[in-house]
Amino acid sequence: MRVTTIHGPRDIRLEERPEPTIDAPTDAIVKVTAGCICGSDLWPYRGENDITPGDTIGHEMIGVVEEVGSEVTSFRPGDFVVAPFDHCDNTCAHCRAGAQQACVNLGITTGGQGEYAKVTQADGSLVKTDGMPQDSLLPSLLTLSDVFPTGWHCAVAANVNPGDTVVVVGDGAVGLCGVLAAAEMGAERVVAMSRHEQRQEIARQFGATHVVAERGKEGAERVKELTDGVGADAVLECVGTDESIKQAFSIARPGSTVGFVGVPHGVELPVRRMFQRNIGLAGGMAPVRAYLPQLLDLVLDGTINPGLVFDQTLPLDRVAEGYTMMDERRAIKVLLQP
Amino acid sequence: MRVTTIHGPRDIRLEERPEPTIDAPTDAIVKVTAGCICGSDLWPYRGENDITPGDTIGHEMIGVVEEVGSEVTSFRPGDFVVAPFDHCDNTCAHCRAGAQQACVNLGITTGGQGEYAKVTQADGSLVKTDGMPQDSLLPSLLTLSDVFPTGWHCAVAANVNPGDTVVVVGDGAVGLCGVLAAAEMGAERVVAMSRHEQRQEIARQFGATHVVAERGKEGAERVKELTDGVGADAVLECVGTDESIKQAFSIARPGSTVGFVGVPHGVELPVRRMFQRNIGLAGGMAPVRAYLPQLLDLVLDGTINPGLVFDQTLPLDRVAEGYTMMDERRAIKVLLQP
Repeated sequence: MRVTTIHGPRDIRLEERPEPTIDAPTDAIVKVTAGCICGSDLWPYRGENDITPGDTIGHEMIGVVEEVGSEVTSFRPGDFVVAPFDHCDNTCAHCRAGAQQACVNLGITTGGQGEYAKVTQADGSLVKTDGMPQDSLLPSLLTLSDVFPTGWHCAVAANVNPGDTVVVVGDGAVGLCGVLAAAEMGAERVVAMSRHEQRQEIARQFGATHVVAERGKEGAERVKELTDGVGADAVLECVGTDESIKQAFSIARPGSTVGFVGVPHGVELPVRRMFQRNIGLAGGMAPVRAYLPQLLDLVLDGTINPGLVFDQTLPLDRVAEGYTMMDERRAIKVLLQP
Repeated sequence: MRVTTIHGPRDIRLEERPEPTIDAPTDAIVKVTAGCICGSDLWPYRGENDITPGDTIGHEMIGVVEEVGSEVTSFRPGDFVVAPFDHCDNTCAHCRAGAQQACVNLGITTGGQGEYAKVTQADGSLVKTDGMPQDSLLPSLLTLSDVFPTGWHCAVAANVNPGDTVVVVGDGAVGLCGVLAAAEMGAERVVAMSRHEQRQEIARQFGATHVVAERGKEGAERVKELTDGVGADAVLECVGTDESIKQAFSIARPGSTVGFVGVPHGVELPVRRMFQRNIGLAGGMAPVRAYLPQLLDLVLDGTINPGLVFDQTLPLDRVAEGYTMMDERRAIKVLLQP
């Protein structure tokens, strides 16, 4: 089959590899209907994470079950499924506590940017739809494998409540999904920090009531003005750099929480400020499976349309071009069709 | 009047100074019935915080209102009051959000280790009792000015829930109050990390179900054993050193929160671990006034007896000795009688 591999910084290839196989009785093989490129894929692409040359890359996908292991009882070939990028048995103590991202049988999707992907812990991880969904729903369903539940997790971690003023730092696909999550949770004002016109527009479609284009001290000042000097009730940090984390803490009101879901790179947390102003920090890798049933319903009944984050659709053989477009911020998020 | 001053590291004196005066119409002067030494007073005592030689020191006290400013309407001379160490108007946006420690009119008690103390924002800050309380209640009432609400805040920040397994790092007076708070909030198991026999005993009286004397990796292993490998549902970090913070994160289960109330000194937060394991951090200076009405009821009706943290009572003129005893860990907390 064809699958995306990474050989070094900015060296993405589509190569022939053997199809994945059932190695454990809890595995499933999924024929990929659509996959995509994750913001976190850009870290190794830019050479900021270690890689093994020739490794496959890609962990987000939806598709049709091709084959299941002998212990998989809830799914069978032909089922259309959404696959969380982080697999879990959904029965261990961590899963029962809603921390599926720390499952004792944690796995990660492989082959998501390919023709066939492998999901471990299929019974605990996958969710299926009744029959094949309409094509128009596919982009939104695809966001459920990672990017939208990640934005949702950020809003949960930041303790967004109805009536809140919420600020989202970061206008990538995760940040935009954070805007949508905050709005869906009933935030009264959702402030998107973005200086990119197209992203501002999507943020507004997702429920942003305000856009702040300024950054740093000026950005913090603008949020202060909007909140009568008090600061935001919740801040969603959706980037993962030291600058964006500091930005988030600069605009959160005392007693609030900064949610963070961007893998931290070079971040030094401002512990004195956190203490002096009683601003908490919570988040991390999203327990996607915990949110999937609820979010799937919201997509299927048309309440939300997170698929708008895909502003580019490419055939799989142009995957390398997709990486370039996202790296250069010419695309927000690229959907790949095998 | 006589009041405690600090002139340099380990140089504590009781000196004659003018009585405090009403400078703002919202001020109150309180004749101190009992004051005490705070763990945070040991930072300047040990030379780890900057001081101005000759400054007064002492911010915890209870007493009888001596004089009030013209705008103080809820208190009058003769009222017995508990004074939160952090004063607030209890009406600003931060106060209304339960973040009284960030009040726009924030003040801190001065003269608490003296004969008369000053409270700014008297109406917003003070709470009074019906008449003079019994002498036996005074130690517990005194803990309400700082140490017990600080332990309580740590448990609130760590999101302690009924049925939880809670671990408290630090066996100082704040840590012991954290044990009491967690037990009162319905934690099923409260683990006190302490290797000091007398403190272990008080922890047990406060509701600790387990004591772990080990530290570092061994301490983390013991907690893992107690929790079937899962980790604690909530961890209360009541010290403020890098070692104790790292200890706290080593025993918190994925998805939980570490509460922290010890002023951080030399702390570098483990941001990667926090992200990878989804362990949040929340806390800081306690909004004492937010908790006072509820905690005052618990003390007055005999539900809790946090005053047990005072294992030494000294006349005010032996205050320097009190500092030495606490510095050398020969006393948990010293009550001072003017």
